[in-house]
Amino acid sequence: MSSEQIDSIYKSVYPLAVKSGEILLEGFKSDKDYSLKSAFYDVVTKYDTTIENFLFTEIGKLYPDHKFIGEESAEHVSTILTNEPTWIIDPIDGTSNFIKGMPHCCVSIALSINKKIVIGIVNNSVTSTIYTAIVGKGAFKNDVKISGSSVQKVSDACIGYEVSLLHVPSIKEKHLKRINEIAPKARMTLSYGTVVMSMCYVACGMLDAYTIEDMFPWDCAAASLIVSEAGGFIRHTNGGEYDIMNPHIVCAGNANLGNEILSLIQKADKK
Amino acid sequence: MSSEQIDSIYKSVYPLAVKSGEILLEGFKSDKDYSLKSAFYDVVTKYDTTIENFLFTEIGKLYPDHKFIGEESAEHVSTILTNEPTWIIDPIDGTSNFIKGMPHCCVSIALSINKKIVIGIVNNSVTSTIYTAIVGKGAFKNDVKISGSSVQKVSDACIGYEVSLLHVPSIKEKHLKRINEIAPKARMTLSYGTVVMSMCYVACGMLDAYTIEDMFPWDCAAASLIVSEAGGFIRHTNGGEYDIMNPHIVCAGNANLGNEILSLIQKADKK
Repeated sequence: MSSEQIDSIYKSVYPLAVKSGEILLEGFKSDKDYSLKSAFYDVVTKYDTTIENFLFTEIGKLYPDHKFIGEESAEHVSTILTNEPTWIIDPIDGTSNFIKGMPHCCVSIALSINKKIVIGIVNNSVTSTIYTAIVGKGAFKNDVKISGSSVQKVSDACIGYEVSLLHVPSIKEKHLKRINEIAPKARMTLSYGTVVMSMCYVACGMLDAYTIEDMFPWDCAAASLIVSEAGGFIRHTNGGEYDIMNPHIVCAGNANLGNEILSLIQKADKK
Repeated sequence: MSSEQIDSIYKSVYPLAVKSGEILLEGFKSDKDYSLKSAFYDVVTKYDTTIENFLFTEIGKLYPDHKFIGEESAEHVSTILTNEPTWIIDPIDGTSNFIKGMPHCCVSIALSINKKIVIGIVNNSVTSTIYTAIVGKGAFKNDVKISGSSVQKVSDACIGYEVSLLHVPSIKEKHLKRINEIAPKARMTLSYGTVVMSMCYVACGMLDAYTIEDMFPWDCAAASLIVSEAGGFIRHTNGGEYDIMNPHIVCAGNANLGNEILSLIQKADKK
């Protein structure tokens, strides 16, 4: 697909990203019930399904042949990524924050073509902030070009790490060892309870780096492009390439910092 | 001192809290240098000293007999708390966030009389939010009365815990054990890199609970009153009373949740 065609798709979908943010904001300001999904920590609200249905329906009207991968609507989504244009959507990332009135939450919309993310739009309407990227054209925060931080060393870095990863017994020890390796050495370790926003914070330098594992495609797709288009570093935690469908990531403002975190992870995993 | 006198002091100092927030906001929007204090993770900017000097000077003009305890100006502050009226001030809490452009930062101003906090004002001017409390008169967020969350159980709770406490070798193992006890059981564990704001989030229900140890008086003084006036629970981590000069705290929206966290801490410390 040509660059002009991708631009055209971006322009047609951007208003839908804005509208979905309006639904998010309406929910944010409302009293809201939630229910549990797979576990006591896995919450969902009616706004998650409303936003996802809105985006699937409206994008589907524009592009009937495109495929969809999303968090809430398992029955009409793909589970494998093909070369076809595929929208990878998280209607609300940071649903716990959304419920508590904490503004670290957003709608995340990505388009994959030939198994590469070519469009990423993240709308944190609660703080009136939209992060956007089109492949090859840089990353933007409210239309202002952004870049990752220039902090080169873990000892000078503010690093995001979700402590709540300790929920899952099979990976608890691994994360405790990594936290014990990274947190004492980093200037600050922050847990914001949102993958998408944390990655966008790396893209604009509000965090210096972020690492997480065992995520779903929709947790990282849009923000992965925003990080890389902001000149940032993004890798699989094993040092290989970022895997859209199976995201285990280290992202950072630059390669020096990202590689130091990869080394610390390797060191922790050997203990 | 009478309730009317405390009200009168509050009214005279509130405009200074607003003005100090304006200085914070000016700094937040600027490029800023920082330097290190006691350790690689202990940062300070010129705005920390500017705000503290401003508050000490201006409050000192209004109340020449009052004493001061503050973070940045060790030479002209008290190190012991007496029964005399004493202002306990953190010019910027969350300085790392302030430097990174992350809005979890604030000015914190407390007045102690007879070793009890009677006034607490926290100005997070970056988000246009002021938390206030006068003893016996409730807690407010931008003049709207607030209360802590009604979440009763850790499994339903969003709990703040600063992972960066692992910086200090002598207490690292203790905190790892506590994180390992609390994080797998809580809905979410969040690290915002600010004590004052995290406690204010407990006061208004954006967090359900927060625990931290080995803090300075200025980290907790104002927010301790805001939590208790919001109907929240605040205790020493050993279960005893909150100690102004030596804060080790568990605070929560209510006693059931606070006590469950105290139990988990006891359990972790025995391991």
